[in-house]
Amino acid sequence: MRTRDIFDNISPIDFRYWDGEVARYLSENGFTRHKLIVELALMRALASNEVCAQAAVDEVAAANGQVTTEEVYDEEDRIRHDIRALVNCIREKVSDGVKPYVHMTATSCDIINTADAARYRKVVEKVLIPALMKLEQTLIAIALREAKRAQIGRTHGQHAVPITFGFAVALYVSRLGNSILKLKELAAELRGKFSGAVGAYNASSLFFDDPETFESEVLADAELGLLPAEITSQVVPPEMMTRLLCEITIAAGILANLADDMRHLQRTEIGEVGEEFAEGQVGSSTMPQKRNPINAENSKSLWRIVMPRIITVFLDQISEHQRDLTNSASARTYGEIVAYAVSMAKRMTRVMRKLAVDPANLERNLAMSKGLIVAEPLYIILAALGHPDAHEKVRRLTLLAQSEKRPLEEIALADSELTPYIKRMTPRQREILGNPALYTGIAARKARKVALRWKQKLEL
Amino acid sequence: MRTRDIFDNISPIDFRYWDGEVARYLSENGFTRHKLIVELALMRALASNEVCAQAAVDEVAAANGQVTTEEVYDEEDRIRHDIRALVNCIREKVSDGVKPYVHMTATSCDIINTADAARYRKVVEKVLIPALMKLEQTLIAIALREAKRAQIGRTHGQHAVPITFGFAVALYVSRLGNSILKLKELAAELRGKFSGAVGAYNASSLFFDDPETFESEVLADAELGLLPAEITSQVVPPEMMTRLLCEITIAAGILANLADDMRHLQRTEIGEVGEEFAEGQVGSSTMPQKRNPINAENSKSLWRIVMPRIITVFLDQISEHQRDLTNSASARTYGEIVAYAVSMAKRMTRVMRKLAVDPANLERNLAMSKGLIVAEPLYIILAALGHPDAHEKVRRLTLLAQSEKRPLEEIALADSELTPYIKRMTPRQREILGNPALYTGIAARKARKVALRWKQKLEL
Amino acid sequence: MRTRDIFDNISPIDFRYWDGEVARYLSENGFTRHKLIVELALMRALASNEVCAQAAVDEVAAANGQVTTEEVYDEEDRIRHDIRALVNCIREKVSDGVKPYVHMTATSCDIINTADAARYRKVVEKVLIPALMKLEQTLIAIALREAKRAQIGRTHGQHAVPITFGFAVALYVSRLGNSILKLKELAAELRGKFSGAVGAYNASSLFFDDPETFESEVLADAELGLLPAEITSQVVPPEMMTRLLCEITIAAGILANLADDMRHLQRTEIGEVGEEFAEGQVGSSTMPQKRNPINAENSKSLWRIVMPRIITVFLDQISEHQRDLTNSASARTYGEIVAYAVSMAKRMTRVMRKLAVDPANLERNLAMSKGLIVAEPLYIILAALGHPDAHEKVRRLTLLAQSEKRPLEEIALADSELTPYIKRMTPRQREILGNPALYTGIAARKARKVALRWKQKLEL
Amino acid sequence: MRTRDIFDNISPIDFRYWDGEVARYLSENGFTRHKLIVELALMRALASNEVCAQAAVDEVAAANGQVTTEEVYDEEDRIRHDIRALVNCIREKVSDGVKPYVHMTATSCDIINTADAARYRKVVEKVLIPALMKLEQTLIAIALREAKRAQIGRTHGQHAVPITFGFAVALYVSRLGNSILKLKELAAELRGKFSGAVGAYNASSLFFDDPETFESEVLADAELGLLPAEITSQVVPPEMMTRLLCEITIAAGILANLADDMRHLQRTEIGEVGEEFAEGQVGSSTMPQKRNPINAENSKSLWRIVMPRIITVFLDQISEHQRDLTNSASARTYGEIVAYAVSMAKRMTRVMRKLAVDPANLERNLAMSKGLIVAEPLYIILAALGHPDAHEKVRRLTLLAQSEKRPLEEIALADSELTPYIKRMTPRQREILGNPALYTGIAARKARKVALRWKQKLEL
Repeated sequence: MRTRDIFDNISPIDFRYWDGEVARYLSENGFTRHKLIVELALMRALASNEVCAQAAVDEVAAANGQVTTEEVYDEEDRIRHDIRALVNCIREKVSDGVKPYVHMTATSCDIINTADAARYRKVVEKVLIPALMKLEQTLIAIALREAKRAQIGRTHGQHAVPITFGFAVALYVSRLGNSILKLKELAAELRGKFSGAVGAYNASSLFFDDPETFESEVLADAELGLLPAEITSQVVPPEMMTRLLCEITIAAGILANLADDMRHLQRTEIGEVGEEFAEGQVGSSTMPQKRNPINAENSKSLWRIVMPRIITVFLDQISEHQRDLTNSASARTYGEIVAYAVSMAKRMTRVMRKLAVDPANLERNLAMSKGLIVAEPLYIILAALGHPDAHEKVRRLTLLAQSEKRPLEEIALADSELTPYIKRMTPRQREILGNPALYTGIAARKARKVALRWKQKLEL
Repeated sequence: MRTRDIFDNISPIDFRYWDGEVARYLSENGFTRHKLIVELALMRALASNEVCAQAAVDEVAAANGQVTTEEVYDEEDRIRHDIRALVNCIREKVSDGVKPYVHMTATSCDIINTADAARYRKVVEKVLIPALMKLEQTLIAIALREAKRAQIGRTHGQHAVPITFGFAVALYVSRLGNSILKLKELAAELRGKFSGAVGAYNASSLFFDDPETFESEVLADAELGLLPAEITSQVVPPEMMTRLLCEITIAAGILANLADDMRHLQRTEIGEVGEEFAEGQVGSSTMPQKRNPINAENSKSLWRIVMPRIITVFLDQISEHQRDLTNSASARTYGEIVAYAVSMAKRMTRVMRKLAVDPANLERNLAMSKGLIVAEPLYIILAALGHPDAHEKVRRLTLLAQSEKRPLEEIALADSELTPYIKRMTPRQREILGNPALYTGIAARKARKVALRWKQKLEL
Repeated sequence: MRTRDIFDNISPIDFRYWDGEVARYLSENGFTRHKLIVELALMRALASNEVCAQAAVDEVAAANGQVTTEEVYDEEDRIRHDIRALVNCIREKVSDGVKPYVHMTATSCDIINTADAARYRKVVEKVLIPALMKLEQTLIAIALREAKRAQIGRTHGQHAVPITFGFAVALYVSRLGNSILKLKELAAELRGKFSGAVGAYNASSLFFDDPETFESEVLADAELGLLPAEITSQVVPPEMMTRLLCEITIAAGILANLADDMRHLQRTEIGEVGEEFAEGQVGSSTMPQKRNPINAENSKSLWRIVMPRIITVFLDQISEHQRDLTNSASARTYGEIVAYAVSMAKRMTRVMRKLAVDPANLERNLAMSKGLIVAEPLYIILAALGHPDAHEKVRRLTLLAQSEKRPLEEIALADSELTPYIKRMTPRQREILGNPALYTGIAARKARKVALRWKQKLEL
Repeated sequence: MRTRDIFDNISPIDFRYWDGEVARYLSENGFTRHKLIVELALMRALASNEVCAQAAVDEVAAANGQVTTEEVYDEEDRIRHDIRALVNCIREKVSDGVKPYVHMTATSCDIINTADAARYRKVVEKVLIPALMKLEQTLIAIALREAKRAQIGRTHGQHAVPITFGFAVALYVSRLGNSILKLKELAAELRGKFSGAVGAYNASSLFFDDPETFESEVLADAELGLLPAEITSQVVPPEMMTRLLCEITIAAGILANLADDMRHLQRTEIGEVGEEFAEGQVGSSTMPQKRNPINAENSKSLWRIVMPRIITVFLDQISEHQRDLTNSASARTYGEIVAYAVSMAKRMTRVMRKLAVDPANLERNLAMSKGLIVAEPLYIILAALGHPDAHEKVRRLTLLAQSEKRPLEEIALADSELTPYIKRMTPRQREILGNPALYTGIAARKARKVALRWKQKLEL
């Protein structure tokens, strides 16, 4: 085994943010393991088509158990071809009679593309989606719990009209829920191939009248469970992987937006929520009083890593003729996109699980703009009651309210032009003008509805 | 009307690559028109809910017919708010009794987001997809026509084993076909909203017990045909638009790859295809003999414009709290992504429609590597016949063939170690060793199958 | 003249954000004008080398005055080559004897690259830098005026220790000042060329023993003032333009950061600054009370347009062999990067010129954390006085202060363990513990020093 | 030591492309080492200012020698603050009297930013630039050696007019040389800081009347050799690092362009150069004859990794107020940009050192277009001799030459209209028309001049 002090690694994904769950699929060892699975699936299909004996399958299965990434790399150093090196490592562990059947009819990319389809599908289904589901579950719980907790709504960073905190969170329940469904769909669209060096089944058609059926058999192997691409060059068309990585980028964007919202709600002047702070945790090396939203900040920062890398993926869409190899090194970095997305999901789950909501500050902030929030319902009710220029009228009253530092309601009630309209208002309308905390529309109802719908849809 | 010499414009999309079909939806006039449609849809729903009289709808419809973008901009210059300016322009054209109902309960983004959903959906369905379908149709025709035309397959820019030209094109039929289907799906997923300033239906719930039903009625208007987003902030969650623009980027990538392949096949030394050259067309201002693949080059260059802009779209995913406005100017540029993609599709259709295939050069190139192509089938057949180290054996023979400049087949036949294997080959196997142009696997069959499948699927 | 309603344009740079100062150089008319300047410079050099008569120069100068972009486009429609079209338009306006000398020895890119170097240099020197200088001047004035105005410093969005508002602005004076200097330097590094179709002076060496000297003469023309690139292919190496556009992107990033800071300081809960609001300006179509930081938001949004486009520029660095044309369409969009950057600079100048600072809110916010800010100086003074574990000690006192809602100073004074240290503090140290607004370090002095240094350096 | 099988790493930079030279500076151990250097430099400056005793410096120096990244991480796990953890690890290894002086007046970013400036400067100066210099040296040698080797110039992938191979390489000598100079300049512009938590020297001004001088003393330490930033927030303004990483991206782009050119010149049909192929090297797992340009492909692919990451760097330019932490995780990935660039430089040096030039193929390709290349000089000479419409005349002759498959020279000589002009041609002009291989302008001379200039400038 080639070991190294992890702190001699260069990428933070390999010391600071490394995750064994992800590495199981997306490390080089994970890659080797999946390439061996594909070689074995090929042997099984050859045997079931009576090209080789069943015993050959067992020999290769046994050989696979012994192949290490290290010896494959040693062999590659010698012959400078990665897949041929792998094949040689298997071949030297089986009997001479079995040797010719190892990798038979396959080209390197049959193995690589199929292994990638299998392991990216698995890591999305078994690691990324579960991590996002835990966050989704947490968000649903908050949306339900805080469905009725009034909060000032903010647009442009300015107080607008009220919502509830649960409603704000329910928006993320919906956005994230939809992304989870898309991820499931797109992971299942990944495709393998066994169509040879240029996609025309040149080699396999030497053996099989219907090489497409043979390809389907290899890919349907229990450990792979894949369908073949409709048509390929040397490689599977890139778009299925591109779409999956786009959706991962989108999911990361949703998490980054959530992180930003949580960061800003923790600003000293706002203070509506707080990240839990551990006993003994230090906030600053020099300012002992600091309590910083470092987990939300970290998630935003991870998004800055993830998002631009989609450009690498789009660049890799282009490959000349039946394939050039200019996507080979770059495609090796896709796993990092997944790894950082998983890290974000786990981090934001921790943030949200322990999120402290501060009711006093929520109320204080809502009260700050009490006198002005009422402008919207006032204008709309006046308009509905037939005032010909309600928006402009109310805009001027707000300027007066601000300059005189008096509540807008008071100024409106004292305005003789408005008296006839105010008399015609319903009691509920009058009540809202006096207590804008009531002016939350259907926020509470909607928060619950959306949260419960996703709870059911995702079986959470 | 504010007119300008088009050559005083700064963006090439507004002089060199401008397209009236696209501008109908994605110019500022197209935007104004769709915002007016939304305001009218709102009036219709208010009337059908008996908030205002049916006559009010007719007044607004008449007013809309007179509103110009120019006057809206003039009004915006005065009051510095784009949607309020639009509303004022409508209001001043209707009677006093109707004025209060214009825009009633709506916030700016109810109008903007809904208008955007409508026009982006339409431009994708009515302009982009039809343009891509014409290209797809052309590709299908080529794939069928050239299904059997042998061509050397190339990986790493090196001769590999043969395919057919129709097969190479069929790969694009499949890739583009899948992208067209995704575009249809994602355009239909765009959503409108009528949920007010912070998404909680604060204003509309003053009038309606079930403001979500009212929202659905507005959006279902015949000229919109939209569904509401499940839940919104001030704005519709961005992901539906992000996904659509990702897929447009993906489609552009497929076209760029096609353009690259066509460019390289036109290299002087390869010359397998050519772009049609007009009578009188000049290839170079100084080299009168030049015939350059300028349309394929142009398409590749347009992709370089389109692709990076997806980063702008991903940045716009993040908006603080119930919305900041940092995506306002940037979202105004999304139309250019669509416009350039349409331009690419039209350009590549012209290239492919008039693509000249040069059979002589195809044959010449295929013949170049005749002696070496045979290496793959030779190795595989030897392996299948039980040779214990066929790959290494053949690799050495190819080195010999190259150094001695003799055909590999000849060398193989003269190799006594191989004699027993060669004797056991089938006649077809022997034939392929002698004529590698036969070694095209199922390329022809597959090209036809894929082309016909898409012809049917897309009803082309 | 081909005119169009500007609202039928697709790019917002051509209706909403169009700027005549920029268009003078970066519109298609600006491009044509500069290409004509280059053709004329060529004639002048041919004449001064006695290849053609001086009268030929006058004829071409007169012809240039009549050439319109429109007729060049009409001619291009006919012959499908942009520069040959331009040459034809000049040629048809001069006598037969002069015709052969028009464009003599030049290839298209000699004209295009040189025209681009000239106009991009000019637009940066005459439009972009002056716009940034106005902003710089405004920032310097604020830094000087507000040098002593205490403000709470914020890290992680949390109150840290105090600075002054002028100090915060001085940071931008420095960042922007440095970027202006880099822009000057990089604009002057743009290079022209007259080295022919593949850069080897193939054509011009038919006429001149030292074609490099001839090239230098053309480029040194009074209206161009350029140096030749050291060596070229068909085109000038892209890196000089890439570096200039990188620095424009960097300048845009500085402006976006400034915009973000101003946005957040305008949050309702913070309110330390405000964008001036015009009499009659509307903040929201439905919320008449709103005063939104739309200019800062707009600048941030323009950055989201500008920044990703650097990827297009990096993609254009790669051109095959002596040049492919896959950067032709894309390079036509570089002008938009400049145009949006100019728009940002002008917009942020407006924001900053009319920026209202709210002393009351600054003081209120500073007071909010009064009791905790003192933690840093307390820890440091204790450490300096020999306390063996000052950071941990103070961290615990802050927890106590928070839970008991008492000022940290009070708690520290009451702590018997600290008594011996407190006795040894200097009067100034004791004063700071009691009034953390004094704890601004050298903020005021530094703000002035930096502002004055840049005032002098840039001669503002 | 925390070790791990390198094949359990997720990023290929940590198994496949890992480089000990880079890791020395840019691994986490390299980071720790540089942070310790900064803490020690601080101690030295405190001692020389008589804040602490000289013996304290020695104690900290001794302690630093024992601190491991592992124990720092363990401490961070406990207290959740990275720099405080480092400080604690030092403190526990020194006597109680020294403890208070460790990290005194410093904030975390004083240490981090300064350590980063030091190690990024070093890795650029000691690893990246030397690697690029080796490539530059190799390119210079090729440019000199091949200065006179005629090669067809190619634009649009089409034969244009001839150059020499050395001339084509000299263009890269110039482009890369300029980038090396910029890298030197920008690495030297990196700046450190010791200005405290918000940049106002709040803490250090408690001890020093002129804290800026103290800062300069710390940074001038022999192991750092840095200057302070003119003004900072909590962090050094990002632009110096942004510019350096932009230039690294630019250098990578030049290498990618070189790689692309070498790839295409290796196409089977072109074959003008070849990558050296090791004895025993395998080109394809299934096609034993393949000789693929995998190193050039790999370099292009590494560029696809490097280039998009500049977006992360541009995103990190924006930090709210005196700093948010949303650039913390992302900045940890910058080292990978450097590491991949180094890998590209080393890889391309290997490619170019062993590059085999194939004179026969160069001549064959040049001969292919012999008859047409002559079009440019023919048109220009005719024009110079006063032909009124030489370009159009020659364009028509080339069409004739192509359709009749006769050399253009022959057709021109037979054209009676041209007879008077041909008679007036100089012998050299006539010679070029007959042998276009002579039509290489000053390619050979220029190749030598440029190569020798850079050999001298870079002292290679």
